[in-house]
Amino acid sequence: MTTDALVLDTAAQDLLFREARTANTFSDEPVTEEQIQAVYDLVKYGPTAFNAQPMRVVLVRSAEARERLVEHMMDGNKAKTLSAPLVAILAVDNEFHEELPTQLPHFPQAKDLFFTERPVRESTANLNGALQAGYFIVGIRAAGLAAGPMTGFNAAGINKEFFADGEHSVLAVVNIGKPGEDAWFPRSPRLAYDEVVTTV
Amino acid sequence: MTTDALVLDTAAQDLLFREARTANTFSDEPVTEEQIQAVYDLVKYGPTAFNAQPMRVVLVRSAEARERLVEHMMDGNKAKTLSAPLVAILAVDNEFHEELPTQLPHFPQAKDLFFTERPVRESTANLNGALQAGYFIVGIRAAGLAAGPMTGFNAAGINKEFFADGEHSVLAVVNIGKPGEDAWFPRSPRLAYDEVVTTV
Repeated sequence: MTTDALVLDTAAQDLLFREARTANTFSDEPVTEEQIQAVYDLVKYGPTAFNAQPMRVVLVRSAEARERLVEHMMDGNKAKTLSAPLVAILAVDNEFHEELPTQLPHFPQAKDLFFTERPVRESTANLNGALQAGYFIVGIRAAGLAAGPMTGFNAAGINKEFFADGEHSVLAVVNIGKPGEDAWFPRSPRLAYDEVVTTV
Repeated sequence: MTTDALVLDTAAQDLLFREARTANTFSDEPVTEEQIQAVYDLVKYGPTAFNAQPMRVVLVRSAEARERLVEHMMDGNKAKTLSAPLVAILAVDNEFHEELPTQLPHFPQAKDLFFTERPVRESTANLNGALQAGYFIVGIRAAGLAAGPMTGFNAAGINKEFFADGEHSVLAVVNIGKPGEDAWFPRSPRLAYDEVVTTV
């Protein structure tokens, strides 16, 4: 596993990818507003098509909101969603195109040229929101925190409970905190380079 | 823009997010196989649901393949797709579930419990493949290279031309290389923390 070809220092490689793991238990240490703001203020620079930035984040901090969320998680995810110091719902705003006149100042007409149809907006929001979710997970690790991303939930239930406006849809739910005891499963394998990358 | 709350050092923050930019022109310096392998061997550790790892990468190196790809790019993307030192097609394998018995050794029955239906596989592949595309873009930057991700293309055309098996579908096309002259547009704005993050 050569890393000589990378510019990023080894400690950062380890922090973000090699030693970072999906945590299944967490310590009691709180995750602060300042930490999440620092994560966002870093990863917001990650690129999206049309600078669309469709990802939206709901930080579930109150006990009441936590209960409402856990209700919609699959059984195997309920305990950790209940016990994590912080839980974030990562969603997309399917009306992201309303922001393009200010967010894409060199091409504000993109809003009306490309995004008048909701299905087009949804597929753009899903792809670019998931890209941003990838950046966000990297950012959580950059803050020295562990992320536990989950997709095992009733999406329609979460959308109805947390996004009654019909304009947002959940992508993933992420537990965030310092790892607790027995936080890790054994690391699963990864596909080899030759199984993933081909050259034409 | 506080960064005190981050553990990742400032130079790494700049390399991956703050100073990294989507390049529109590139120098002639080649991108080596070793560099792409180092990128993959780092970002492969990024988490995916069920350890599905659906992303597949096609490195377009021959002039003949480059021509075939450029054919399907939108006009505004043709010149840079033709001139970039390396172009990668990021796609998903909609038959990723065939790998689960080896890739998810603690839960091999996931293949048959959850993924017998193609539409379910497609939505899982699209979400998790886009997460991996986010990790991959970060990895390109970790190699000191600029990425130019694009979604302006005829997806059906690329799928037919490069994935005749019907099992793969393109997510994005990424130009890769060292930035050339006038590589950057002025940086577009970003949504503020309070526009993206809410607390409940």
